[in-house]
Amino acid sequence: MVLPILMDGGNYIKEGKDSAKSTCLIFSPKEEAVGALAKCLKLFEEHGVNLRHIESRPSARFPNTHEFMVECAPTGNLGGAIETLQQNSSYFNIISRNHKDNMETIPWFPRRIRDLDKFANQILSYGHELDSDHPGFTDPVYRTRRKYFADIAYNYKHGQPLPRVDYTKEETATWGAVFKELTKLYPTHACKEHNHVFPLLVQNCGYREDNIPQLQDVSNFLKDCTGFTLRPVAGLLSSRDFLAGLAFRVFHSTQYIRHSSAPLYTPEPDVCHELLGHAPLFADPAFAQFSQEIGLASLGAPDEYIEKLATCFWFTVEFGLCRQEGQLKAYGAGLLSSFGELQYCLSDKPDRKPFEPMKTAEQKYPITEYQPIYFVAESFEDAKEKMIKYAHTIPRHFGVRYNAYTESIDILDSKPQIQGLMENINCEMQILMDALRKL
Amino acid sequence: MVLPILMDGGNYIKEGKDSAKSTCLIFSPKEEAVGALAKCLKLFEEHGVNLRHIESRPSARFPNTHEFMVECAPTGNLGGAIETLQQNSSYFNIISRNHKDNMETIPWFPRRIRDLDKFANQILSYGHELDSDHPGFTDPVYRTRRKYFADIAYNYKHGQPLPRVDYTKEETATWGAVFKELTKLYPTHACKEHNHVFPLLVQNCGYREDNIPQLQDVSNFLKDCTGFTLRPVAGLLSSRDFLAGLAFRVFHSTQYIRHSSAPLYTPEPDVCHELLGHAPLFADPAFAQFSQEIGLASLGAPDEYIEKLATCFWFTVEFGLCRQEGQLKAYGAGLLSSFGELQYCLSDKPDRKPFEPMKTAEQKYPITEYQPIYFVAESFEDAKEKMIKYAHTIPRHFGVRYNAYTESIDILDSKPQIQGLMENINCEMQILMDALRKL
Amino acid sequence: MVLPILMDGGNYIKEGKDSAKSTCLIFSPKEEAVGALAKCLKLFEEHGVNLRHIESRPSARFPNTHEFMVECAPTGNLGGAIETLQQNSSYFNIISRNHKDNMETIPWFPRRIRDLDKFANQILSYGHELDSDHPGFTDPVYRTRRKYFADIAYNYKHGQPLPRVDYTKEETATWGAVFKELTKLYPTHACKEHNHVFPLLVQNCGYREDNIPQLQDVSNFLKDCTGFTLRPVAGLLSSRDFLAGLAFRVFHSTQYIRHSSAPLYTPEPDVCHELLGHAPLFADPAFAQFSQEIGLASLGAPDEYIEKLATCFWFTVEFGLCRQEGQLKAYGAGLLSSFGELQYCLSDKPDRKPFEPMKTAEQKYPITEYQPIYFVAESFEDAKEKMIKYAHTIPRHFGVRYNAYTESIDILDSKPQIQGLMENINCEMQILMDALRKL
Amino acid sequence: MVLPILMDGGNYIKEGKDSAKSTCLIFSPKEEAVGALAKCLKLFEEHGVNLRHIESRPSARFPNTHEFMVECAPTGNLGGAIETLQQNSSYFNIISRNHKDNMETIPWFPRRIRDLDKFANQILSYGHELDSDHPGFTDPVYRTRRKYFADIAYNYKHGQPLPRVDYTKEETATWGAVFKELTKLYPTHACKEHNHVFPLLVQNCGYREDNIPQLQDVSNFLKDCTGFTLRPVAGLLSSRDFLAGLAFRVFHSTQYIRHSSAPLYTPEPDVCHELLGHAPLFADPAFAQFSQEIGLASLGAPDEYIEKLATCFWFTVEFGLCRQEGQLKAYGAGLLSSFGELQYCLSDKPDRKPFEPMKTAEQKYPITEYQPIYFVAESFEDAKEKMIKYAHTIPRHFGVRYNAYTESIDILDSKPQIQGLMENINCEMQILMDALRKL
Repeated sequence: MVLPILMDGGNYIKEGKDSAKSTCLIFSPKEEAVGALAKCLKLFEEHGVNLRHIESRPSARFPNTHEFMVECAPTGNLGGAIETLQQNSSYFNIISRNHKDNMETIPWFPRRIRDLDKFANQILSYGHELDSDHPGFTDPVYRTRRKYFADIAYNYKHGQPLPRVDYTKEETATWGAVFKELTKLYPTHACKEHNHVFPLLVQNCGYREDNIPQLQDVSNFLKDCTGFTLRPVAGLLSSRDFLAGLAFRVFHSTQYIRHSSAPLYTPEPDVCHELLGHAPLFADPAFAQFSQEIGLASLGAPDEYIEKLATCFWFTVEFGLCRQEGQLKAYGAGLLSSFGELQYCLSDKPDRKPFEPMKTAEQKYPITEYQPIYFVAESFEDAKEKMIKYAHTIPRHFGVRYNAYTESIDILDSKPQIQGLMENINCEMQILMDALRKL
Repeated sequence: MVLPILMDGGNYIKEGKDSAKSTCLIFSPKEEAVGALAKCLKLFEEHGVNLRHIESRPSARFPNTHEFMVECAPTGNLGGAIETLQQNSSYFNIISRNHKDNMETIPWFPRRIRDLDKFANQILSYGHELDSDHPGFTDPVYRTRRKYFADIAYNYKHGQPLPRVDYTKEETATWGAVFKELTKLYPTHACKEHNHVFPLLVQNCGYREDNIPQLQDVSNFLKDCTGFTLRPVAGLLSSRDFLAGLAFRVFHSTQYIRHSSAPLYTPEPDVCHELLGHAPLFADPAFAQFSQEIGLASLGAPDEYIEKLATCFWFTVEFGLCRQEGQLKAYGAGLLSSFGELQYCLSDKPDRKPFEPMKTAEQKYPITEYQPIYFVAESFEDAKEKMIKYAHTIPRHFGVRYNAYTESIDILDSKPQIQGLMENINCEMQILMDALRKL
Repeated sequence: MVLPILMDGGNYIKEGKDSAKSTCLIFSPKEEAVGALAKCLKLFEEHGVNLRHIESRPSARFPNTHEFMVECAPTGNLGGAIETLQQNSSYFNIISRNHKDNMETIPWFPRRIRDLDKFANQILSYGHELDSDHPGFTDPVYRTRRKYFADIAYNYKHGQPLPRVDYTKEETATWGAVFKELTKLYPTHACKEHNHVFPLLVQNCGYREDNIPQLQDVSNFLKDCTGFTLRPVAGLLSSRDFLAGLAFRVFHSTQYIRHSSAPLYTPEPDVCHELLGHAPLFADPAFAQFSQEIGLASLGAPDEYIEKLATCFWFTVEFGLCRQEGQLKAYGAGLLSSFGELQYCLSDKPDRKPFEPMKTAEQKYPITEYQPIYFVAESFEDAKEKMIKYAHTIPRHFGVRYNAYTESIDILDSKPQIQGLMENINCEMQILMDALRKL
Repeated sequence: MVLPILMDGGNYIKEGKDSAKSTCLIFSPKEEAVGALAKCLKLFEEHGVNLRHIESRPSARFPNTHEFMVECAPTGNLGGAIETLQQNSSYFNIISRNHKDNMETIPWFPRRIRDLDKFANQILSYGHELDSDHPGFTDPVYRTRRKYFADIAYNYKHGQPLPRVDYTKEETATWGAVFKELTKLYPTHACKEHNHVFPLLVQNCGYREDNIPQLQDVSNFLKDCTGFTLRPVAGLLSSRDFLAGLAFRVFHSTQYIRHSSAPLYTPEPDVCHELLGHAPLFADPAFAQFSQEIGLASLGAPDEYIEKLATCFWFTVEFGLCRQEGQLKAYGAGLLSSFGELQYCLSDKPDRKPFEPMKTAEQKYPITEYQPIYFVAESFEDAKEKMIKYAHTIPRHFGVRYNAYTESIDILDSKPQIQGLMENINCEMQILMDALRKL
């Protein structure tokens, strides 16, 4: 099985479609006059810059200061507006999809969970554009069906319920064939976290041989366990976008199923891969945090590090092995959703090395055949700590933190924010001390 | 102005309507057999107990263990089922609305944000049941309008958009009268946090003399700032339920407006009170956390402490004063939405004492006239710390923590949870160290 | 009983005897050349400044930088030398006993535990200089004895064993009279910490009616319990110096005993006061930390705050009451060593208020009669936290931390130090997590 | 050069000389009666057990409880006494040098810094017992001199000044020869921490070609920098004892010098090795903590882990390499004090692997020739963290923490201690927050 979702080889530069050329400015005017917003709007107007969005919020960086976020269309004399604005701002940052052309900017990343809606316009290929060697290439019914699923995802907005799908009898049969074979192997081949969660998915989400679970039910279950949610995806995302979703504990999931002609093979992720491979693990708190760490590391990182992080993702979340009570087990979704590779990966054929992000990130890998090498994690806690340490080696001039209350990313680059974070830790310590006292 | 929302003097015992007599059981079966669920369902059946809801999740308390949550209708031999179940469980807790009759149970509280939907059936009086001295008592149009708003709230479910309302010209005029008077006083009488946020509400949420802002817009703004959200409420909630909402950073907000005959007076909270008084403060991180602490303290607390906490709420979030740069300012919503009391509270007429939860909690107060005594906070950070300390004196055999990822309350009563919390703090420390290094 | 040790009413300005006029410079040369020291020595020579002490250490403030500490005699053109030095230093601080004349300097404080040796030359009055109303004023034998004790203390240097004293039969009888009376009251009047430790002092340090314990034995016991040690003192110390000792967990203790003619009265602290009043409490970890916090707060604080802190010390360590299981108990040494006041303080005659550093610090008090007002602490943990908060209101442009490894005060005023402190906390967290896992 | 100090291959079992067969009991009587001590003494008497030492302290484990520590001679019916005692104790632990014969006991370790005095009777060979191939074997003057140094160390007690030695002209010449050669290599071969500290040792401690520094001066300097101190050692210590010293930041140091006939060779550590190799590094905070972690890990560890830790010590503190700005540098004392091996270790002849305690601990090594393999640390911070993690894998049913105030080891095995540690961390957080605010 092959998962080309991350296989963009740097292609994400292509992603600059017109609608995506927005530049996002975050700034705090030096003067706190009520008229600051009006002045700033006038400035853009004078420079002929169209604004697609504007919002103002209290600044977390400077006491008694407001912070503006504006999204500028690539029109007019944006450079001039920026220059003037920067001179009159106590804080100024540019986040841009076109950062390659302007090294002073931060590569674009979603700052609020609702910004993930913007990915839809950035997909590298739409869901029904099948390659000629795809099993469903010549099947018009299948292609129509793929278009249907792609459209659902394309139109989806954050906060909406995930559309429930009536799967056809044929589709359910395909799922059943996969389900039947894999569940035989899980008790011996899957990691204990997978086996611990699986019966709960049966009880709560309708995991059965004769039923394809609905994304919404699985998403609800995951939300209760770790805060992870699923979100439909219309096609191939760039690595940068895909990883960014993880920073929000959002997993972009396909909803279609592989072609019925080859139930045990698929050249791309499908609903079997997502629900049987990925979903169970996202219910585990340590694994959820590990996945999120990869996502957080990617935000605003230079392109070469995006590739490294995608490689780490490949060798863990997709193809990871771990050692449990002295035995090798599979936890990667690419393995847990492939009858053949799940057996192969624990056999004596492939090579195995300890998971070390620094080294794992450099490993080349094939995408159309079984992996010749796997990386073994000691535990998810351990993998998470290693990932955090690795993340700190990525050149980025600010810290990041996901704020689960506001469902947004905090860009940490000021003393007041660090103080706020310390207040937070202090509060958590109080909770800890109270709970320990009551134990 | 008078805010009887919390004035239930222990009336919440009334709240036991039929549909509310559910008993919630949380337990982990001793044996982890896949058949545990089936066995447990059979047990309830044998005892003639109807289940309204059942769900199973991984346990955070014991490794490799599942945790069940079932909601039992008050049918059959529940006592017998509980006894048997308890013997076969490694963890067992009863959360019940009828805890008065069974002191071994924990007073009911919502554990997930969606549990707040259950409050609708618990309201003490419906929104259009006006007292005879209410300015709108004899106005059938106003009463119909109140019924309309109550129905919106009654049918509201978590996750839905807050219905947008077309306010009538008359309603908007009433708002305008209030808005005009109060905004004159704010610069001199309101605390700096209120004045800092107010222009942002103008810019982002349509706060204007000629427009009543929509709850959804304000809720979105607050969500971005601190994670607070608004939720419509159909009538008078018990103190226990109202405070519980704050634990989730959810504020139950009315949506109707006072009667047009008395724009500067209202015997109960209305949309002017919520939007002009409460909303601006919930955008402040320290205040948001302070409010949440009151909510967290209330979960599962004995009845007498609910009253104490409601009193603390009264003297802070509703009628609190604070000292800023040597001057007294108002931050309580009851003050910030009352033209008369806002002036009175800073005058030399009332008494003022420092906010000390231990003492404030015992203070009696009138609900139909200006307060004779106010409590003064040094800062929200300080008030928060005092509230946390006070909360630790409330008898409760477990710790609580709000998990913003899962939008649920963690009941902390096991070592693994404490270890998990320490892992969390450890992660936050890593983020802190990384951000500091980059400063 | 009266404890004038702290009653200097600001007299510590007198303390500028010649030998004390040293100015201490702490600086890091900008260039890290090996020749930096030589250059700097030459500079002082050129300006005719004599150096009393010079040492160089690795800097904790700047990586790869050295830090010099030089003590300059008040000779030559010190101002000129300082000016030149400051220009060539990346870090520069002046710590001076004469800070009143130069507001840019930090009031002198000991930075290493061995600096406490410098107090001997700063005492405000020597131990045998008795006032005319002192019970031993006309007793030449007693005065000689007092001189003997003062000389021991005057010559004492940090690290030496505390000289053991052969107390005379008469002295032992005086101790016995005090011991006998007080031990009758302790079970009912002393706080539980005092009563918990007292039998251990009997077992380990020779607390008996017929034996005056040796300071060294008590100091050893305290060192094992909390790290507190005793140090003999030759006479009256300034408040600034006395409090500074506490920052190192060093308590300056008299070794002589009151005059035999009045065993239940003494106008000044004596060995009965120290050993019966102070010593037991210093064996309690929370109290030890509370005392140290007062000391740390005093380091480099402005003169007016020294007086406030001395007042806090007076109303806690000397005359503090606390509430334990609903009952008032004494923990102040002035009470625990006075048969009369110990009974009086718990009677209904005096006033009592809650301990609030902000207010307690302002309270006036008599020194020659029983206190008309006492302050009541909730617990030592609580008092400590309040003290820490109060300390943070003292104007001082650096943080302080006692480093128990190096037995020195860290002046925290750089990012690397804060990072180091965070690394420390991180290590402590690891220890905590390991210990919790093993519980 | 060869450092056999740790080369005992498990010989430390030999160490059971008579005087060392003491068994140490730590216990808290169940009843807190004042007579508990008397009862307990009587119990030992009845069983004919002689006590060498007895002390009582407040218990950190149980509120309002005392803790006794008694050292029993191997006389009478110790087993019987222990059995009775254990039944009447709420806490009971046996720490024994003879733990091999009784697996329920904890292997002996020093709990207070003064317990290090007990090592003198445990040395595996006395300092003047030279092997026949020792360069000084046939030199009676040298042997007498070695006896002189061994006697100094044998009689040394904690707290005393380290005796100053008049080195002979010949001894100074030997030092000079070593000093001259090594200082040529340091700028290019030594790690930056060594080169940073070295000039300070010249300035403060008399490091010169024509002067052998006195241990006391170096110890004082180290104490100021990191709290490390030197302590003379009379001969070969067991690994267990030697490592235990590090837990207290005490380094056991020889004071004699190698034989003049071979200035660039020594079969054992000598003062050149200690002062040129070890001392500079102990002035570095991160290195000091790293060394202490090895020591802490060893306390009460099973024998096989002592060997593993000794091996880690060998490959780090003795023969460690590190990478700094892309270049390999030496930080191990065995390298920094050997002209030959210092050049060899950075050449392309030996193997080099990354420092990973789990693997390094298993590596075999020769002791009479240059190392064929070296381990490379990324940084001392990193090595420290790895060491801490490794330590947590050592089977030991309690946590340990060095308390620098009491200069003793806390055995962490109760909830109150963990709570106390959390209070401590909380205090450190306050200090951190205050310092950050003032930055």
